[in-house]
Amino acid sequence: MSTMPPTPDHQVFLLGDVVLQCRQTLRGAQLAYKTYGRLNAARDNVIVYPTWYSGQHTENEWLIGEGRALDPTRHFIIIPNLLGNGLSSSPSNTPAPFNQARFPPVSLYDNVRLQHRLVTEVFGIEKIALVTGWSMGAMQTFQWGALYPDMVERILPFMGSARCSRHNQVFLEGLKAALKADGAFQDGWYERPPERGMRAFARVYAGWGLSQAFYRQELDIQALGFASLEDFLVGFWEGIFLGRDANNLLAMLGTWQQGDISDNEVFQGDFAKALGAIRAQAIVMPASTDLYFPPADSEIEVSHMPRATLQVVDTVWGHLAGGPGTSPADIAVIEAALKRLLAS
Amino acid sequence: MSTMPPTPDHQVFLLGDVVLQCRQTLRGAQLAYKTYGRLNAARDNVIVYPTWYSGQHTENEWLIGEGRALDPTRHFIIIPNLLGNGLSSSPSNTPAPFNQARFPPVSLYDNVRLQHRLVTEVFGIEKIALVTGWSMGAMQTFQWGALYPDMVERILPFMGSARCSRHNQVFLEGLKAALKADGAFQDGWYERPPERGMRAFARVYAGWGLSQAFYRQELDIQALGFASLEDFLVGFWEGIFLGRDANNLLAMLGTWQQGDISDNEVFQGDFAKALGAIRAQAIVMPASTDLYFPPADSEIEVSHMPRATLQVVDTVWGHLAGGPGTSPADIAVIEAALKRLLAS
Repeated sequence: MSTMPPTPDHQVFLLGDVVLQCRQTLRGAQLAYKTYGRLNAARDNVIVYPTWYSGQHTENEWLIGEGRALDPTRHFIIIPNLLGNGLSSSPSNTPAPFNQARFPPVSLYDNVRLQHRLVTEVFGIEKIALVTGWSMGAMQTFQWGALYPDMVERILPFMGSARCSRHNQVFLEGLKAALKADGAFQDGWYERPPERGMRAFARVYAGWGLSQAFYRQELDIQALGFASLEDFLVGFWEGIFLGRDANNLLAMLGTWQQGDISDNEVFQGDFAKALGAIRAQAIVMPASTDLYFPPADSEIEVSHMPRATLQVVDTVWGHLAGGPGTSPADIAVIEAALKRLLAS
Repeated sequence: MSTMPPTPDHQVFLLGDVVLQCRQTLRGAQLAYKTYGRLNAARDNVIVYPTWYSGQHTENEWLIGEGRALDPTRHFIIIPNLLGNGLSSSPSNTPAPFNQARFPPVSLYDNVRLQHRLVTEVFGIEKIALVTGWSMGAMQTFQWGALYPDMVERILPFMGSARCSRHNQVFLEGLKAALKADGAFQDGWYERPPERGMRAFARVYAGWGLSQAFYRQELDIQALGFASLEDFLVGFWEGIFLGRDANNLLAMLGTWQQGDISDNEVFQGDFAKALGAIRAQAIVMPASTDLYFPPADSEIEVSHMPRATLQVVDTVWGHLAGGPGTSPADIAVIEAALKRLLAS
């Protein structure tokens, strides 16, 4: 258990051999992370801010800055990278025999357990002022709250859920099938990226990531500056995913699909019990037009959480309302809620 | 111009060589259709009921029956099959050189013009009491109303729009990309079906065809009798599309994507003008939870139509609220509206 020498942009916590929930061993497990600001003497200024599907810590940084809700001059912010995202242990960076298609299934629970080790073993932290995150980052946020209620004082999951809903699973099945339809994927043993499948994956994603109203208002052109719908599909969506590794995308997708904060030895599948265990003060923030994390799921979750309030972000930006810097008005709403929660 | 000898289940109107909007010629064009009931002496009991995406006339019949809204003991019902659906001229049944990937792009306008020829040249019909249809059938319904306002007395498009919205286009791009990701598609020159791509197509469709609430309530299991979500994805969704031809699916998808009742010489792209030209008494019926023909688009359309009312079907069945016999409660609402409109 030690940290590797710093890289230009992040550090890596070496966890040794970790037995996962699936009863396979992640040998030489690595958790990549970056911190911002300083841990104060009271150790009470900690924010944990997990990454979203396919994103890396640099793609979380848009919410961090002096005067921002996550302020490194006041807070000690830790961004742990999701397993499978190419920086933490992933199909793309794990040596044989557990590389590529043999990378073991990693659960939401596995991720948060390892993040907990990072926070406690590396930094000796006992209290976390806030856990927050977008999308799959929100799923990790819920899991943190449920597993470590004595440690986590506040949570603000935005545009995410505590369990991957059945509809969300179907959406993800579509993504997966589109990628795997490309024979170049070769059941995960490709030497060159299955580019056609990855572009199909991206194109399927494009319909889900934003709302009908977003496209009706032509915000791809009017707000994001693309020249046409096709320009947006290629330049934005295909651009996001082509740079990622296909097996990594599928590994994280598996984590997402199986994501359920109660699917572990602690809660034994009792979802209401897991939600009820979250004693953190919570603001749960779905986006009104999110097509795969719709507000209705958040309502159900909040009804089981003892100290949670629901605050729906009224937006046409769909899931991307919480994304990296695309919708300033929505981000202002999220930041205001973060500040309010941190001040409480 | 004649009709072919009757087949066991339908007839075919031979249209000769038809120059399409795209300035290619559909040689030996065929429009397959079936009629139900008898044309009365006054010729005022005609209902035109076009087919939906990939469906054939037999898959429209669930709304027809004695005592039903479309009653063959009272009405003369004509179901024209959409070009590309495997019965009317399609990539799969057109001889070389215009077969498979060379089947020319067919527009919504082309379809309705040829249907108009069927109705007038074969049956000598001058007035149509009602045009109605689901999904792409609804798109044809709007087009009928706009092109032939002196002929069409009533329309009831359900779960469809007068123009393929930009978001709807993105949804269709995802389907298309998933199918084409399969190298076995061979740019349309396959000898054996690109099965992996078609299954991916179906799996992507599964998320769009029904609502988040449908899946949350497990209606795939509770109402449709499947054993699990995976059982439903394979048994229902893959089952629907595997029996179709891939080039046919893409031909109809092209018609859908380009579908716009104003995209023709009559309206020159003036969408409001085309909607305003619909003098038929109209009930426009979207489903409250339809993910690709959302009610918001219908509201806009109705606002431009002189004699239209909007009636939203309140349902969790999403787009499939209007589908073949899956949701009896929603079908009852649609039927009641059809009866009310026909009685007016």
